Amino acid sequence: MLEEQLLTDNESIHEVAQYLLLASGKRLRPALVLLAGQFGNETASLQQRRLLEVATAVEMIHMATLVHDDIIDDAVLRRGIPAVRTQFSNAVAVLSGDFLFALAFRLFSQAGDLAIVELAAKVVHVMCVGEIYQNMDHGRIATEEAYWKRIEAKTGFFLETSCRLGAIATGVSQDVETLLGQYGHHIGLAYQVVDDLLDWLADPEKLGKAVMEDVGAGVYTLPIIYALKQPAYKDNVQEILSSPDPARYVEDLRQILVRSGALEYSKSQAEHHIALALDVCRQLPPVPARQALQELAEFVLAREY
Amino acid sequence: MLEEQLLTDNESIHEVAQYLLLASGKRLRPALVLLAGQFGNETASLQQRRLLEVATAVEMIHMATLVHDDIIDDAVLRRGIPAVRTQFSNAVAVLSGDFLFALAFRLFSQAGDLAIVELAAKVVHVMCVGEIYQNMDHGRIATEEAYWKRIEAKTGFFLETSCRLGAIATGVSQDVETLLGQYGHHIGLAYQVVDDLLDWLADPEKLGKAVMEDVGAGVYTLPIIYALKQPAYKDNVQEILSSPDPARYVEDLRQILVRSGALEYSKSQAEHHIALALDVCRQLPPVPARQALQELAEFVLAREY
Repeated sequence: MLEEQLLTDNESIHEVAQYLLLASGKRLRPALVLLAGQFGNETASLQQRRLLEVATAVEMIHMATLVHDDIIDDAVLRRGIPAVRTQFSNAVAVLSGDFLFALAFRLFSQAGDLAIVELAAKVVHVMCVGEIYQNMDHGRIATEEAYWKRIEAKTGFFLETSCRLGAIATGVSQDVETLLGQYGHHIGLAYQVVDDLLDWLADPEKLGKAVMEDVGAGVYTLPIIYALKQPAYKDNVQEILSSPDPARYVEDLRQILVRSGALEYSKSQAEHHIALALDVCRQLPPVPARQALQELAEFVLAREY
Repeated sequence: MLEEQLLTDNESIHEVAQYLLLASGKRLRPALVLLAGQFGNETASLQQRRLLEVATAVEMIHMATLVHDDIIDDAVLRRGIPAVRTQFSNAVAVLSGDFLFALAFRLFSQAGDLAIVELAAKVVHVMCVGEIYQNMDHGRIATEEAYWKRIEAKTGFFLETSCRLGAIATGVSQDVETLLGQYGHHIGLAYQVVDDLLDWLADPEKLGKAVMEDVGAGVYTLPIIYALKQPAYKDNVQEILSSPDPARYVEDLRQILVRSGALEYSKSQAEHHIALALDVCRQLPPVPARQALQELAEFVLAREY
């Protein structure tokens, strides 16, 4: 359906659309929509069609934010290939993001439920506020509380909403919708903590983008925030961050994050939220999709890309 | 309502929002929504509230596209003050545009009619396709037919839709909605033709942005397309456009456009569409808003900014 929706007879747009489909990513959000849609009583084909539309629109919103984020972060690579802004231009990246937003909201409105449109608009709104906050405050040291707030806006709320949209589209009961939302919230937070960890730990080949970029970009994630609270490492980290070019010292910083237990602490926080997600899973009706949600939670923790 | 909607307790966003409100523009699109909403039988306060929400959301969509267009065009000024991208950064401009889109779709969904959301999404979609087309094909000579298609996508459809959204929000009859849409379509085309003329003729102080910029940016509008069809001027225009830096010869080009009758031809095309808009007006019910729509059509033609 994503391919079908991006199909166009305009040659220029076709080229960008094909490029966007090339680097497909994990499709985590539409997977959540589709899985959450398996907990209803209804399995009418009309509802399954609607579910597919919502899942497709959710992925389009995600694609749009990635294309725009790469402009914001001056990113060169995305998912192992040049970012849209690198391959084409910033102009094309701005426009193709807007184009995806528009297509997504057309699809959401076709799903025939205003609650779906309203939630989708709220997701984009919350993500923008989170990003504006991160962007305008960059280079300032955040508290751990501000970190959790930021990743909730960036990822937690989107994954929670993906689950809830799947539930709404298929008429799942309010109780189960709430549980699915909680599941999404926890794997969202865990996903982002792992993402921020992978910036320090991943093989850039597997990850499909450069690593140890956050500090240079003035974005301080959980490991840094934790290390800054340790009396033995605080001054050293502070010194690096306030140097004219902190990116030069990322390897030193990485070693401090290992020694101070900061990476371990972050990992334990991700594990904590996955445990909470699995707790919620156990309260869900025992349909086959529940097993998939459990496996998905384990993948979020174990992933190396 | 626009101020109320942009109100936020986040300091960073507040700063951008205030800046966006500073350069207010003509507010043409919300004016069309509000005027089109005066042709219904209903004047219930609920519907007037809904009309105001739709008008506000329409202006937000317009603001979002302007902020993003300035990134695409590397524009320095907008409405007489530095563009958001100049005042803040490209990153902030991308995000604040997305933020406005999100707020707009939240408002559209609150208006409680899926047809409204669907039309709004279609407007953004059509404008993006038009802009992508213009951007990726820039520097190619377009036919007059392609020009009309492009400005229909850029402005005609948006002004048509603004009128139709006002009609839908207040339960105007289908016949009147169609007439209002036709009115919006014609003043939209006239508006854009005049906009493209002002690039050649306006006082930059009054216009609030630089003039004679289109050619340098590889955007060829109606006067150029017309001049290229005149045997006496064709070669000269072609020579300038294919020179390494056409922007150096804009003053020569302007004189050719005067002498070849190209500017006059464009003006007559704008007049033609305003005449059609006034024809449609005469078929509308004789409510006071009809007079305002007639005056608005005359303003579109006479404006110098």
